[in-house]
Parts: sequence; C-alpha cells; structure tokens
Amino acid sequence: MNIVITGGAGFLGQRLAKRLLERGSLSGPSGRAQQIDRITLVDVVPPPESRDRRVATVTGDIADRELLEHAIDSSTTSVFHLAAVVSGMAEADFDLGMRVNIDASRTLLDLCRSRGERPRVVFASSVAVYGGKLPDLVLDTTAVLPQSSYGAQKAIVELLINDYTRRGFIDGRVLRLPTISVRPGRPNAAASSFASGIIREPLNGETAVCPVDPDTRIWVQSPGTAIDCFLQMHEVASDALGSNRIVNAPGLSVTVREMVAALERVAGPTVVSRIRWQRDQRVERIVATWPGAWDTTRARSLGLPHDENFDAIVQAYLREVHPT
Amino acid sequence: MNIVITGGAGFLGQRLAKRLLERGSLSGPSGRAQQIDRITLVDVVPPPESRDRRVATVTGDIADRELLEHAIDSSTTSVFHLAAVVSGMAEADFDLGMRVNIDASRTLLDLCRSRGERPRVVFASSVAVYGGKLPDLVLDTTAVLPQSSYGAQKAIVELLINDYTRRGFIDGRVLRLPTISVRPGRPNAAASSFASGIIREPLNGETAVCPVDPDTRIWVQSPGTAIDCFLQMHEVASDALGSNRIVNAPGLSVTVREMVAALERVAGPTVVSRIRWQRDQRVERIVATWPGAWDTTRARSLGLPHDENFDAIVQAYLREVHPT
Repeated sequence: MNIVITGGAGFLGQRLAKRLLERGSLSGPSGRAQQIDRITLVDVVPPPESRDRRVATVTGDIADRELLEHAIDSSTTSVFHLAAVVSGMAEADFDLGMRVNIDASRTLLDLCRSRGERPRVVFASSVAVYGGKLPDLVLDTTAVLPQSSYGAQKAIVELLINDYTRRGFIDGRVLRLPTISVRPGRPNAAASSFASGIIREPLNGETAVCPVDPDTRIWVQSPGTAIDCFLQMHEVASDALGSNRIVNAPGLSVTVREMVAALERVAGPTVVSRIRWQRDQRVERIVATWPGAWDTTRARSLGLPHDENFDAIVQAYLREVHPT
Repeated sequence: MNIVITGGAGFLGQRLAKRLLERGSLSGPSGRAQQIDRITLVDVVPPPESRDRRVATVTGDIADRELLEHAIDSSTTSVFHLAAVVSGMAEADFDLGMRVNIDASRTLLDLCRSRGERPRVVFASSVAVYGGKLPDLVLDTTAVLPQSSYGAQKAIVELLINDYTRRGFIDGRVLRLPTISVRPGRPNAAASSFASGIIREPLNGETAVCPVDPDTRIWVQSPGTAIDCFLQMHEVASDALGSNRIVNAPGLSVTVREMVAALERVAGPTVVSRIRWQRDQRVERIVATWPGAWDTTRARSLGLPHDENFDAIVQAYLREVHPT
C-alpha cells in the first residue's frame, strides 16, 4: 500500500510519517491491516532526506494536477491531507488560499475518486471554521461561521469530504484540530503562531511577543496528541462515523494566562519574563472568533486521545527539544 | 444600473424580472434607490421574448466564463443568482452539479469582485443544506449537514458568499428557500418536484404521483412570497445582516396530508382523487433529511414576508393559472 501525506515536509507531516514507518502497517480500504510499502510525502519544499527506503517524495505545487497525479497512484489506499496555506497567509493572499486550500483539495479528491479504490482520506481541518456568537461549549451540531478565508476554505473542503464519502468516491474523515501548541521551529504566518511562540521562544532564551490579551481563551492540543488523533481517525471503522465524517478533536481549554503560568511552573520566572505583551488587532480579531472549548463526547467515543494539562504539554516539548 | 438575474428564464427568474420592471428602481451599492436601466437575464435556454426595452438576454452555459463576463459588466450593481442544477439532477450527474452549482458560482463571484463596485449579490440557497438528526425547529445556529450533492454545493456557495462579503469583494446575501409550492409548468428533476405536482396536476385534470408518505412534513413557501423575500433580501441594509449573510426564509410547516386536505377544501374531492400514492425511496431518502420547520425570528426581523396558510397558496395558484 502507498500512503500519501500532503504537507509531508511540515512538522506534523514529518511526525506522522515517522509514526507510520514505526507502525509498519495501517488499515486498508477493507478495514484489515496492510503492510505499508511506501509513504509518499508531497510538499512544496523537499522534506529532510530519509534513510528509509519506503519513503518517496514529490516536491512542487500541490495545486498542480500533474504533481498530484504522480503522487496518488493506483496503489494509494490512504491519504493524509495536511497541506494548507495557513490562516494569516490565506488572509493576506486570498487567491493563493483559494488555489491551495480549495482547488488543490478538490483535485486531490477527484484523483482519489478516479482511482476507484475508495481510499481513506483524512483531512486536517481547524477550529477556524467556527466564528460569530458561540456557546461556551461548541457542540457537533453548532453551525460553523468562519471569520477568516482560511476557515471558510477549510469548511468548504469539509463539505466536499462529506459528499464525496456519501457518494462512495472516498472513505473520508475530517479531523478538526484545535490550535497546536507547542510547535517546534520558527513562527509562521498562522494567526495562532503566538500560541507556540510564547512557550518556545522564551525556553530558547529569546523574546516572544504575545499579540492577544492574557485572558484570551484558546483550545489547544499538543503535536503528539494531534498525530495520535490523525492515526485513530484513520483507523476507526467507517460505520462508526456515519454520514457526518467531521470530528472535533479533543483539546484543552486554556487562557493565555494559564499557559504562561504553566510555563512558569515548568521553567521558572526568568523564562516567562521574556514574553512581551503587545496586542495586535489583526491577530486578536481572528483568534477572538475561535471557540474556547468544544464538546468532545463524540471524539472520545471514537477513541481519540487527549492531553492531560498544559504543564504536561510544556514538559513534553522540553523533553523533545532539549533531551537530557 | 444593470441588474443580472441568472436562471432568468426560469419561473422564479421570470417573475422576479417582471416585478423589478414594475418597480423601476432598486437600491444601489450606496443604499440609495437607483433607476433600473437594464435587466440582463442569463440562462441556458432563452427566456420568452420581452417587449420591455430594458430587458437584455444572455443565453448559454453559465459555467462559461466568457458568457458571464458578457452579462456582468461594469454597470452591474446587483446580481440575483438563481441558476442551478436541481437536486435530482445534481444527484444523477455529480460533475454537472459541481460545474454549474459551484464553479459557475465562483466565477460569478470573482467577476463581481473584479468589477470593483461591491455589487449586491442575492444567492438562492435551499432547505437542502440541512440533514441528519435535526431538532424539531431548526435554528440559525444549527449546523448544516447536506445529504445530497445539491445541498452540499449550495452550502459551499453560502460559505463563499459570506467570505467574499467579509473581505469587501461583494455585498452578499443568501436566502435559504423552503420548498417552493405551487410551481407552475411541468415536473422537474428536483426531489421536491412532487410538492407542486400533487397540487398542480390534479387541478389540471391530470394524475399526479406522490412519492412520499402523507405524514412527511415539509417546509413550503409560495412563489409569490419567495419573490417578495428575494426583493427584501436585496433591499435590507447591509449592516442589518452583520457577518452572517445567510437568512432562513419564512415558510409554512405542513405535512403532505395537510397540503392535500387544503387542496380538497379549495377544489373538491374529485380533484384530490387524481393523486396516486406510490412511494419512491430515492425521493423519500432525500426529502426525509430536510427540516420540517425552522426558526424565522431573524427573517421576520429583517422584514421578510410569509404565507398565511396552504389554502391561500392553492387559491393564489388557481387565480394565477385559471383567472376568471
């Protein structure tokens, strides 16, 4: 079996590939475990070279149909569709967001359909589909109302995944991710970039700017738990999902103040003093429309894991980047 | 000002054009009333010839960008986007539905954007965006879960209209229509076609087949009220709509049995005896996913009119097709 990961050079894509290689097998379209023969990483930049002979890479513009045709071949039984133009960038360049977040997704789905094998497609959606006046606890039955182009584009692909699945073209699954924290690496153009930056940069001895009010409540998940959720979303039986393929992933509901307090408990006040508070309306406006918590009953019944608390998230990040 | 009506040869498009010509003016982008210089009817079939010199027609495939470029010119201040591949046909021909219901809509929105005048765009959406387990009364905050490709395609364009509006490309408004009854003319490929057929055909001395259980509850609106709702959706101030441009139009919640009882009260038992009850699973499956009633608080606060009862709808239809 060939497993395709779009966004395969990104940090979630890389971790997912690593986990899959370790596992060595994954459920095929029939539901039975199959050996992984190949993992094809598709991304606009080349991923770090892998010594594993099962890893193939396809580098280029994901909105290019020929590129995707090359990646999704007749042996493709699973696709993890993680590639996206992030929120801040989709807001800055509308046409780029439409092209990558919608057009490329549709090409990908049409290719999966044309292969005729009804592959499992796990799509990474986002908390950003929500917006407007939200209840304190967002339910699965709460209407989406995106307040960013990124969120609108994610919500549109969710609808496509549901319909392509209903029609039997694919076996689609949508994981609506919370804000991921702590991401390693450098800040990116996502409006949620600060949610990692205010932990990562101070731990690294650098100053971080927090662009939102400390009482801003966000819904976060660690990268490790996100990967576990992706795998579980892939493995869950199709019947268990029914006609609604969209699952809100479990997260932690924390304020920025609570995140910083956890950082202080784990790493001390000197580290925390490296955070500079400087509100940025552009970021605040987007983040304020995201829900601070959502109901996870369905996610848990499907076996999706969750983080215990934010202290543990900070500790896990520390162990990873500064192994002792 | 040039007003574009897509689906302008259809029965709602024709009525809307007639009403606009009678009015003679409509709110422009500034909100001030402007004289209507031209109404451009876009449709795949030519509309009946009009003697009014303000009427222009553009005939062809709405998914053809050049055709739309021809219709939507720099003097276009309003677009009523009614053209669609109906539910039964979008289910039978997936690619046709995607091309007309999504691709053409996006081209239309992009042209409106490129004209730079932020035209008012009123989009006809549908009850078909809803599905799955619904509350007895669907609220504005109830999540959509389309169970037909038509419904998914309408829900996708709703998201585009909201985002194009948020970004200031257009001044969009979405009217989610109930099932329209009584449509004049002949049956069509919509799953809801029976909701007109069981009234229209018996009144015309013909047999009609009802493909659903008599206790099926549907949410209906008369054509006349639908036109009034389109006009009011266009005229309402942009600020009154806020960030959610989607409005659930007021309808009547009736069972098919109640519709037939109304027909009997208005036209007598002989007429009603022309209905043959023969369930069709394909139709029932689609119709069963539509809500039987939705909350109309917002619609009414925006001044959208509603029908009094189904007897009045049958009477209005009779007056129109059999004027005495």
